[in-house]
Amino acid sequence: MTEAEIDAKLAELGITLPAPAAPVAAYVPVVIAGGLAYVSGQLPFVGGALVTGRLGEGVSLEQGTEAARACGIMILAQLQAALGSLARVERIVKLGAFVNSTDDFTDQPKVVNGASELMVGVFGDAGKHARSAVGVPVLPLGAAVEVDAIVAIRAD
Amino acid sequence: MTEAEIDAKLAELGITLPAPAAPVAAYVPVVIAGGLAYVSGQLPFVGGALVTGRLGEGVSLEQGTEAARACGIMILAQLQAALGSLARVERIVKLGAFVNSTDDFTDQPKVVNGASELMVGVFGDAGKHARSAVGVPVLPLGAAVEVDAIVAIRAD
Amino acid sequence: MTEAEIDAKLAELGITLPAPAAPVAAYVPVVIAGGLAYVSGQLPFVGGALVTGRLGEGVSLEQGTEAARACGIMILAQLQAALGSLARVERIVKLGAFVNSTDDFTDQPKVVNGASELMVGVFGDAGKHARSAVGVPVLPLGAAVEVDAIVAIRAD
Repeated sequence: MTEAEIDAKLAELGITLPAPAAPVAAYVPVVIAGGLAYVSGQLPFVGGALVTGRLGEGVSLEQGTEAARACGIMILAQLQAALGSLARVERIVKLGAFVNSTDDFTDQPKVVNGASELMVGVFGDAGKHARSAVGVPVLPLGAAVEVDAIVAIRAD
Repeated sequence: MTEAEIDAKLAELGITLPAPAAPVAAYVPVVIAGGLAYVSGQLPFVGGALVTGRLGEGVSLEQGTEAARACGIMILAQLQAALGSLARVERIVKLGAFVNSTDDFTDQPKVVNGASELMVGVFGDAGKHARSAVGVPVLPLGAAVEVDAIVAIRAD
Repeated sequence: MTEAEIDAKLAELGITLPAPAAPVAAYVPVVIAGGLAYVSGQLPFVGGALVTGRLGEGVSLEQGTEAARACGIMILAQLQAALGSLARVERIVKLGAFVNSTDDFTDQPKVVNGASELMVGVFGDAGKHARSAVGVPVLPLGAAVEVDAIVAIRAD
């Protein structure tokens, strides 16, 4: 897709990419190796505030899905900053998703669809990815969801 | 290995590949990029039924190991569907395993051997892989184990 | 970096690489595919003893950080054994970190810095990596931290 097409898709979906979040520790947001961009685990910021809490108690399925989508939007923001343009995305290859969950909450797949549907919404077939989604008892800073990514990129 | 050799190994191990499970959400089972197949996290189906429950309470070590093996069999079924033939597998590179565990169950390595030994049983040296195995408090649909994979493939 | 430069860095940091730990199960420590080394999840050994326990109860932030650093040192020991020399490391691409955590411990990023700062300390810019860090309720053998890695290597 061209940059103009991607910008149009983002606008259509009502997405304004935020400033990419600084890493919360001693690492970098994106490393490129062998034609793949490895994106660090991204936390969910909605309106600039971190979405915290646990699915199955304080956080509803709808809020969790929105949080996963926010992780996905931050992945896009990191990719745009690292690649210069999202037009260099050839394929979203893999998302790794961790959902802050009580031990009886089993709808991680629905939650993580917030990120997955975003990728397909923005990139179409090139947004269709492999995925793992699991529950965890706690995440950095109390975040509700964390998602990392592997993305195939075009040489520019 | 040739397709005939792999078929013979599967038969010798008493394995009939199931129909590959449909993704439980908005993603795809396998993405190929840069000579590697990324296989989505697979859940354990035995006799068509999902193996649910937690190691350390309802699920025994033996049942958990069998569940991990079932995840491995589903990885093979997904690879066969995506690649056309398991003869295109050059190397099982990495398994990522998540074991639904009580917080005092620490035998994740033995559980995940169910998947690891399957790979070596089917592919021999080409089945020897890197691995991570961790405990989690809950998995999608209440599954006992989830395993994803990175697999090097031959051009066909 | 040259082998001599890396040896000097390790000496400066007071690090003697241990004998690489044998896998605790049916897998191998490192697989190389497509110019990347995939390192299996490493557990923390300090003075030859596994660091066990959970952040937020028995294990302090300082002990956890030291444990993460020990996982990083074992990653280096595995790479040296597999590659022959750490001079073949082109870039630390990605660390995947799992921290044994109570469900109200949210400082996983600080803990995992023990591994991240080690990589930057040894390799400089080539040690800057992408990362995910999450909490888990339990790890193999009761370990406090587990870290796996993807590393770009030079042809030798």
